[in-house]
Amino acid sequence: MQMSADALAQCNENPLYRTIGIRLDAVADGNAHATMTPAAAVCWPTPGQPHGGILFTVMDTTMAFAALSNADDGSGCATVDCSIQYPAPARHAPYTCRATTLRRSGRTVFVRAEVLDAAQAIVALGQATFRLLPPRA
Amino acid sequence: MQMSADALAQCNENPLYRTIGIRLDAVADGNAHATMTPAAAVCWPTPGQPHGGILFTVMDTTMAFAALSNADDGSGCATVDCSIQYPAPARHAPYTCRATTLRRSGRTVFVRAEVLDAAQAIVALGQATFRLLPPRA
Amino acid sequence: MQMSADALAQCNENPLYRTIGIRLDAVADGNAHATMTPAAAVCWPTPGQPHGGILFTVMDTTMAFAALSNADDGSGCATVDCSIQYPAPARHAPYTCRATTLRRSGRTVFVRAEVLDAAQAIVALGQATFRLLPPRA
Amino acid sequence: MQMSADALAQCNENPLYRTIGIRLDAVADGNAHATMTPAAAVCWPTPGQPHGGILFTVMDTTMAFAALSNADDGSGCATVDCSIQYPAPARHAPYTCRATTLRRSGRTVFVRAEVLDAAQAIVALGQATFRLLPPRA
Repeated sequence: MQMSADALAQCNENPLYRTIGIRLDAVADGNAHATMTPAAAVCWPTPGQPHGGILFTVMDTTMAFAALSNADDGSGCATVDCSIQYPAPARHAPYTCRATTLRRSGRTVFVRAEVLDAAQAIVALGQATFRLLPPRA
Repeated sequence: MQMSADALAQCNENPLYRTIGIRLDAVADGNAHATMTPAAAVCWPTPGQPHGGILFTVMDTTMAFAALSNADDGSGCATVDCSIQYPAPARHAPYTCRATTLRRSGRTVFVRAEVLDAAQAIVALGQATFRLLPPRA
Repeated sequence: MQMSADALAQCNENPLYRTIGIRLDAVADGNAHATMTPAAAVCWPTPGQPHGGILFTVMDTTMAFAALSNADDGSGCATVDCSIQYPAPARHAPYTCRATTLRRSGRTVFVRAEVLDAAQAIVALGQATFRLLPPRA
Repeated sequence: MQMSADALAQCNENPLYRTIGIRLDAVADGNAHATMTPAAAVCWPTPGQPHGGILFTVMDTTMAFAALSNADDGSGCATVDCSIQYPAPARHAPYTCRATTLRRSGRTVFVRAEVLDAAQAIVALGQATFRLLPPRA
């Protein structure tokens, strides 16, 4: 699956992305890429720095699209588990997230991702397991 | 450290909690408890269900307060790593999160947490490492 | 499922357990308990301290039995993911591991475990996802 | 730091590696590489397949050397946390592990690793946090 520019634009109108400041940039062939310019409201407790849960959210959603990109149209997916590490404070927006599918085994997909700051330093890294959900009839 | 009712109320006015719908209920002696009634804006892609990143956020912030509750006044803390699992969909608000400090070793604190739905079913469980930051002079 | 004393004794003769020094003590109703008295060969690089991978191994195998204890006879299981934290050095054998099933969802089982040293201090804690494999025909 | 052929050979004589069947191949500049030909004794419960804890052990030790390779001579290191995923059964020895340091922040080092089977398929992937220990006086 490759998301078209129209599909990306439509997705980016969703309320979660608009509240946080997430933009999905590209989804194709097991990979996905997103950009986050965090809204002031999610930069707490340190002004200017997105909360760790917000970095997790952009990572999780980008990985989910990477996982879905190799599934049948109309599939859903659920995060089974995700581990995140925070090597450094996130002080320089915008942030970019790239997610890569490492392996799919049946309906289970293993994905890694990194979040980089504006200077290309890693501020979060993760690995997750997703479970693909078949399209609803 | 035990947070007073006033301190909790003041904390709960922060923009992140108000955007998501988080309320910190109690922080004392290595433990913390929070309640989340998710705002509609963070219930995406499934209406009525908070995004997995939002469940992570309430878990991470509750664990951070559990970690801080045994530190010197004015300390900060940073999440080093956190692993989350999602045993079931989150369909029944409000959600409660309880976090428990298992061990502190110097400035490193090991914490576990669970998020339960309104029927007391576990919808997320996590374990994390936090690094305490000394009070600023 | 509850493993009988005979079944436990037979399991404990396996070469992995004998090489490491693992003894499975009890398996019943979603829980499992094991004891490890580490062989000198697996205490490296610090004499007297089992390698972190050995602590992981006792935790993983104990959790697997906890997961299996609620499955049909003859089922197998595979670890999907496991996160481990090491709050303190492991200096006081024997070690005990207790594993608890938190939730089963279809063929997926979510389990937590802790490894304690002889003084009951936590030296490792983990959470894992297992996938049950149906009995072979 | 770069480990010389002599230093590698000496390390590879340690009892843990000999018991399991691990050989450290190269350590330099934040990276490390190892090969595992698992002893029959650690291939349980499925003959011919190393236990998941054994795959973890080779991954953890390889990552530790990657972390140490950028530290002062004589430093030690301790695993703080490690997350492992198992995308597929490990059926084709020998296995190779490559570990890569992603970032060092003070005495904390963030490392990723993969274990590949003889056909270059990923059978385990991990990310870990290590804490460097200063050389003993």
